[in-house]
Amino acid sequence: MARIVHVAAAQMGPIAKSETRKDTVKRLIAMMREAKARGAELVVFTEMALTTFFPRWLIEDQDELDSYYEPSMPGPVTQPLFDEAKKLGVGFYLGYAELATEAGKKHRYNTSILVDRSANIVGKYRKVHLPGHAEPQEGRTHQHLEKRYFEPGNLGFPVWRAFGGVMGMCICNDRRWPETYRVMGLQGVEMVMLGYNTPFAHTLHADIDGLTSFHNHLSMQAGAYQNSTWVIGTAKCGTEEGSAMLGQSAIIAPSGEVIAQAVSLGDEVITARCDLDLGKRYRETIFNFAKHREPAAYKLIVERKGAIAPPET
Amino acid sequence: MARIVHVAAAQMGPIAKSETRKDTVKRLIAMMREAKARGAELVVFTEMALTTFFPRWLIEDQDELDSYYEPSMPGPVTQPLFDEAKKLGVGFYLGYAELATEAGKKHRYNTSILVDRSANIVGKYRKVHLPGHAEPQEGRTHQHLEKRYFEPGNLGFPVWRAFGGVMGMCICNDRRWPETYRVMGLQGVEMVMLGYNTPFAHTLHADIDGLTSFHNHLSMQAGAYQNSTWVIGTAKCGTEEGSAMLGQSAIIAPSGEVIAQAVSLGDEVITARCDLDLGKRYRETIFNFAKHREPAAYKLIVERKGAIAPPET
Repeated sequence: MARIVHVAAAQMGPIAKSETRKDTVKRLIAMMREAKARGAELVVFTEMALTTFFPRWLIEDQDELDSYYEPSMPGPVTQPLFDEAKKLGVGFYLGYAELATEAGKKHRYNTSILVDRSANIVGKYRKVHLPGHAEPQEGRTHQHLEKRYFEPGNLGFPVWRAFGGVMGMCICNDRRWPETYRVMGLQGVEMVMLGYNTPFAHTLHADIDGLTSFHNHLSMQAGAYQNSTWVIGTAKCGTEEGSAMLGQSAIIAPSGEVIAQAVSLGDEVITARCDLDLGKRYRETIFNFAKHREPAAYKLIVERKGAIAPPET
Repeated sequence: MARIVHVAAAQMGPIAKSETRKDTVKRLIAMMREAKARGAELVVFTEMALTTFFPRWLIEDQDELDSYYEPSMPGPVTQPLFDEAKKLGVGFYLGYAELATEAGKKHRYNTSILVDRSANIVGKYRKVHLPGHAEPQEGRTHQHLEKRYFEPGNLGFPVWRAFGGVMGMCICNDRRWPETYRVMGLQGVEMVMLGYNTPFAHTLHADIDGLTSFHNHLSMQAGAYQNSTWVIGTAKCGTEEGSAMLGQSAIIAPSGEVIAQAVSLGDEVITARCDLDLGKRYRETIFNFAKHREPAAYKLIVERKGAIAPPET
């Protein structure tokens, strides 16, 4: 019997710096309603879906910086999203900047949560692979200061039983790293949800940046195929405060095929009925990990962080 | 200054069971000459390039089986290939079935070697990811008994300084596993060479097998991009002893782009001038491993061989 999860990727156009969270949440709710009307039971929103992508600026005033983080989830402004989800009986993935207090100390993470159809938070993930820099870089019209504003996630890559399957989460840059999918694949993940904010001018090398769209799908397609899992990738996109960002939100099957894709650079809902059993035949044949993987040959992956080339001769 | 390696992928059409190694070596030499005439200094031949793909049969006679393996390299029949390489000043990658004697015992590996422009063997690799089965499967017109005829490689994924760069090797099914490229990427690999014999009917699931071409390139393109390396993939292809095999040999840049591809299902040489420095800007930005990888979050990759899903609730 097919195990169907009817999922929506709710791509988001630009969020202006001046836009209030209240108005942003209205946009999320509008997309959630559209998704529900089209039959979806799970809506994947994007990374940091509540505010503009603030790591593009050096913000030295601590209060101003903190205004971008959520000290509680749900909070007063996000409660309506949870209420609507409960009313509609729809679950969701939501990315946001998290201000956590752990052991009496403040910590900042780039976080996502998985919320079930009764509006209960059933999973939390904190972004492991922070891109960009800790210090502003010369020659950039837009900075990318995630390494300054966040700590690397301290929750690993967990998976959760929800929506009738094994669900996993990651965020943006995580999707380029095969380790991300593999750690979840080794826990039997069947659907990986992720949001991203990807400016085209991310490396400042025109040859690389010109391939941003290709690399976006390549990474997610390979992750899906090599781990027999669905991947749902949802963009924040369009020109936000002068920074042009990639759209191309996609629903990708365990075959690696893109089976639904956004075509705009604005708020746009795409949906697909995802059969979680589709990955099964891959997992039982070419990607039967128990039969074919050889972990003894992989040790360097955990023993070494950076690359070390053999000495020049 | 650009560091160019002018490389050829020497795709090979079918080798009939009745074809002698002497005739096969002549075909390899003809392609080596063509590659040299077009400017190449390094020729990548395919996996098990000296015989038909014998794991498609259950062979119970030990002498018959052993006749497919090379007890020495070069041996009497392969020496002319080495002689020609030396004469032309061309290096090569060659795949073959290896009969090794280690600690007084016979061992069988699916092996490749890297030979320099003076015909010296500078590197040896033994296939880590053996696909298929140890016992014949019912319902198959062609078996895939690599797990019966070979032991998993015991040399890991080493790299070598040669041809002005850092060179790595893998074989066929290895290319589907991101760990393969990553272990070499962590050693600064700049060019990964691989040969493959990939029958279309490899899983017997029509939906998967119908995507064989897509999965072939997807795996190699992701491996190239995610590790900032060139990948040279060379097929044995066409209909060999009734088994239809994939062609699509490709030279793939560190961007993940296929920059040269075979169009036939026969002996065909494709070439490209590969600048080993092309990967540098990727390694220094998005794929700066030392800055961005988080090995503490990857432990499961080496701690666990098979997937273990969380208990059903």
